[in-house]
Amino acid sequence: MDLFSDTLSLAAPILQAPMAGSQGHALAAAVCAAGGLGALPAAMLTPEGLDAEITALRQHTQRPFNVNFFAHTVPQADAARLARWHAALTPYYQALGLDPAAMPQGAGRTPFNAQAAEVIEKHRPAVVSFHFGLPADELLARVKRTGALVWSSATTVDEARWLVQHGVDAVIAQGLEAGGHRGMFLTDDLTTQVGTMALLPQIVAAVNVPVIAAGGVADAAGIRAAQALGASAVQIGTAYLCTPQALTSAIHRTALQSEAARHTALTNLFSGRPARGIVNLVMRELGPMCDAAPAFPLATAAITPLRVAAEAKGSGDFSPLWSGQNASQLQDVSAEVLTQSFIDAWRGQSA
Amino acid sequence: MDLFSDTLSLAAPILQAPMAGSQGHALAAAVCAAGGLGALPAAMLTPEGLDAEITALRQHTQRPFNVNFFAHTVPQADAARLARWHAALTPYYQALGLDPAAMPQGAGRTPFNAQAAEVIEKHRPAVVSFHFGLPADELLARVKRTGALVWSSATTVDEARWLVQHGVDAVIAQGLEAGGHRGMFLTDDLTTQVGTMALLPQIVAAVNVPVIAAGGVADAAGIRAAQALGASAVQIGTAYLCTPQALTSAIHRTALQSEAARHTALTNLFSGRPARGIVNLVMRELGPMCDAAPAFPLATAAITPLRVAAEAKGSGDFSPLWSGQNASQLQDVSAEVLTQSFIDAWRGQSA
Repeated sequence: MDLFSDTLSLAAPILQAPMAGSQGHALAAAVCAAGGLGALPAAMLTPEGLDAEITALRQHTQRPFNVNFFAHTVPQADAARLARWHAALTPYYQALGLDPAAMPQGAGRTPFNAQAAEVIEKHRPAVVSFHFGLPADELLARVKRTGALVWSSATTVDEARWLVQHGVDAVIAQGLEAGGHRGMFLTDDLTTQVGTMALLPQIVAAVNVPVIAAGGVADAAGIRAAQALGASAVQIGTAYLCTPQALTSAIHRTALQSEAARHTALTNLFSGRPARGIVNLVMRELGPMCDAAPAFPLATAAITPLRVAAEAKGSGDFSPLWSGQNASQLQDVSAEVLTQSFIDAWRGQSA
Repeated sequence: MDLFSDTLSLAAPILQAPMAGSQGHALAAAVCAAGGLGALPAAMLTPEGLDAEITALRQHTQRPFNVNFFAHTVPQADAARLARWHAALTPYYQALGLDPAAMPQGAGRTPFNAQAAEVIEKHRPAVVSFHFGLPADELLARVKRTGALVWSSATTVDEARWLVQHGVDAVIAQGLEAGGHRGMFLTDDLTTQVGTMALLPQIVAAVNVPVIAAGGVADAAGIRAAQALGASAVQIGTAYLCTPQALTSAIHRTALQSEAARHTALTNLFSGRPARGIVNLVMRELGPMCDAAPAFPLATAAITPLRVAAEAKGSGDFSPLWSGQNASQLQDVSAEVLTQSFIDAWRGQSA
């Protein structure tokens, strides 16, 4: 019984990566319609917002989909670090005509919690996936009782083994090439992070559940390479960012389709955790990794007004321009057409 | 006319990566005998030593081989930085019973120069490859006049284009997973470095010469993945380090076959340039990247006595334990057997 073709009835194991802030139900529905697995990112939604998104997705598709949550621990605010962070951002506030005294604080992203579990219990999605490990045992048990498949991301062999010991049904091997947040949760040492070509076969050899390849897979060649390395499925994110169904901003789309997209870096400036985006002004000047940035997700609040003000002037200088390392061939075709091409590639039907 | 099967008469385009300090003509001869392309690393040899190595290799094989050089610029010594470096190493000298006042200085590695060109003109190897760019025009012209194919490593799309503009016959796409020295030469910004899964297809799309995949390719699955990504050949290093024909130390072999090999990092401690090795004591305590380390290759001299003293006690705490990110499946079979398995994999004849 194959997890992807039988349990989830996919035409091929092509999974759209959940991308919080850049997509909602429209992209997920299009991927599902083409025979892939669409995903709804819940990390930046309230329980009510998530309920509405799942309801909207169900209106567009009867097919299975994935709902993705962050499973981080909410940190204590560190006043001294927050003060250094605000000091680092103050000159930019002044330059953009914003009031540094009004710099917002707060979390911005909520981890998977009891309210989210209620939404899952109500809607019973086929797959619930997590980033940054797994939620506490009791919450995880509630998800499992709904019958959902549970997946999470591993960035090292150790993390993959840990996830399997904690009961996941599949492991997402997130290579260093991947865009957006690193799913790392057993370590914060970036030197432990491994390219897909090396990570994927080692996780395949280490665990006895299906392994999903993520990171640098953006086209037919990457799909065939992931197959050769033993992947049971591929999860593709960046390639969907330029589809009309994504909510990607015009500034972000332009950056993705420019030479600038060749240079991405891991940065903690936009959330507090390392995430891969196209290098822009604030990453060059403050980072890309910055000791003053508060712990995840506390960095987001204070940098967001800069993003909004700069974007209003047409600038992405303060925007998280999430991208993997393999964005140079991005097409702005529809998500259905893109998914179909990925399905064909998996089946060995494309050039 | 295929560069690898026709010009070089290889059974399949399986290239052994040159690994200075870890191998000589014995490994190269074994790879050649099996139908791959053996390589002699010249970076740590005198012209006389190189002449002797090539002579010895020719006694063992009539087949084509690759001679590899570093093409760096020799830096001016920076007295202040050297003083900081010596201060950083002094406690280790004292702990190991060495005299810090006798800390050696000097280069240790010589770039490709007129004397090396004479050796090439004498022996006329089929391939001359470079790391860290290419030598000056006049020196490169001398190599080309011998009829040698000229290759060099690119770690970014920009470097690949630069190499083609400067006349290379093939580009080695060195993904971030690769062991040993990063070949980067147009930048020293490590955030520009890209995983093989993303780098290889982008270089294949950008240049009109054959592209050789390097970095994370260590077994049949990796070879097939590289093929899927458009590689015309693969260059494999780490997998050969545990063969009996390599000169790898017992300490290094033990580290490669332990769980410790799962954690490598880029470090400048052993030479001054970032190179990937298994994380050990000195990398944890001073780095892995250290501002005090002098420019390449000036860091090597002062750290070498620590390596020698520690290794005499059975410790790799100060040794460069070069390794790629995909060392978990290393076998201590002979280099001929290993090469034959790689040839079979390229031809689609293995599981």
